[in-house]
Amino acid sequence: MTKTSPSSALLIIGNEILSGRTQDANLRFLAKNLGEIGLPLREVRVVPDVHEVIVRTVDELRARFNHVFTTGGIGPTHDDITAECIAAAFGVPLELHPASAALLAAHYGQENFTPARQRMAMLPRGATPIANPVSVAPGFTIGNVHVMAGVPSIMQSMFMELLPELPRGTPVQSRAWHAVDIYESLISDKLRKIQEDEPLIDIGSYPWRFKDGRKGVTLVAKGTDPAILDSVSEKLKTLISDTGATPVEGEPEQGAA
Amino acid sequence: MTKTSPSSALLIIGNEILSGRTQDANLRFLAKNLGEIGLPLREVRVVPDVHEVIVRTVDELRARFNHVFTTGGIGPTHDDITAECIAAAFGVPLELHPASAALLAAHYGQENFTPARQRMAMLPRGATPIANPVSVAPGFTIGNVHVMAGVPSIMQSMFMELLPELPRGTPVQSRAWHAVDIYESLISDKLRKIQEDEPLIDIGSYPWRFKDGRKGVTLVAKGTDPAILDSVSEKLKTLISDTGATPVEGEPEQGAA
Repeated sequence: MTKTSPSSALLIIGNEILSGRTQDANLRFLAKNLGEIGLPLREVRVVPDVHEVIVRTVDELRARFNHVFTTGGIGPTHDDITAECIAAAFGVPLELHPASAALLAAHYGQENFTPARQRMAMLPRGATPIANPVSVAPGFTIGNVHVMAGVPSIMQSMFMELLPELPRGTPVQSRAWHAVDIYESLISDKLRKIQEDEPLIDIGSYPWRFKDGRKGVTLVAKGTDPAILDSVSEKLKTLISDTGATPVEGEPEQGAA
Repeated sequence: MTKTSPSSALLIIGNEILSGRTQDANLRFLAKNLGEIGLPLREVRVVPDVHEVIVRTVDELRARFNHVFTTGGIGPTHDDITAECIAAAFGVPLELHPASAALLAAHYGQENFTPARQRMAMLPRGATPIANPVSVAPGFTIGNVHVMAGVPSIMQSMFMELLPELPRGTPVQSRAWHAVDIYESLISDKLRKIQEDEPLIDIGSYPWRFKDGRKGVTLVAKGTDPAILDSVSEKLKTLISDTGATPVEGEPEQGAA
């Protein structure tokens, strides 16, 4: 990974991910989008709905990374404790956010704006709400921590609301080559040399197997300098063709497993 | 979560997960299987292929959890650094494991057992190999750390090899009820009371929406005591029916999103 780029971390909050009930669908979306704006993910954690664990983890991540994104735990039920944990981590009170309360009251109707629903308008003091175009209840940003819903469609719409507010680093770009009938162990020495010569580029090697049984390898170079990436990309192509295999640009088609 | 059960953590190693190139498929498999044998996952971390990050994370997790499972980074290429990182974390040398080398030599043929392939037989001193029925190159266990491949089919076969060696805790069981036309904010107060009355049970509330637009909520109780679970399950059923909605046992059918 390029060491000079700003970095981000993702904290996934929820027993349902740790128990295997729910397949996370947010990591990959955020990873791709954050890479594209130059805030690549450097670490992800998944923690349970436990107050002290969330507070400790948020504190650790916000000290170590430029930006921290959280998903999950911002609904109206007892297991939705993210907002109170973030408030505790920042040492500020959780309080009713009047503008968010007004939006929710208008959405539900004042007579149906029950205490349980008012909970969704409670933000840490000093937080800026992140609009929720899907179901109104907001996320929020406080300091370098961005708190979003866990439901993927809501998380994605919140991220799009947040996107214009995020600083930009240098976008991470990638170049990929793949080939069938090639084995990692036949290219690993030369591949290591290519990596050692270009420490600012991350080179990954990923074996795969099509459902029809054909096997192959994909080589992926990632980095922020397009000229160096292009140069590495040429080396990867040559590395493959030198084995007698045919290099094909990009990732293999869907269906590789 | 039940506090008395042994606990485990998962460390997912690989730039390809953090960049969004690859969708992780191992967390959920391990979460379910570890819950069933009473070693529930309490934390997951995803880290890049960076030596010092892996060593520090392994050390932290193995001190805090009864078992640590890792996936990824055990192939023959330069980005496969898990074995050397685990050796560093345990302060032991990485050395050729003769029995594993013999298996790999037989698999590839002695004349094709190149230095790159020999790398896959290098284990931390004192490690016990985990057989790999798919592609021979082993995982391993050292102390309370279990190192497995990242490719899901290989990881799953390694886990099945490892399973008889793992201690058993009390299995985590779950009870679920769901209903359409019910809203979390209408039940959250009573649900909180049910949770507070049974701190050994974890109750989760998960809103969902079918593709046809119908919305609902699933309530899930998890714990290790079947009698308490059954009692909580009855309370959840009553909670739903008291709103006028029809409680349906279990999770909603596939297609909820």
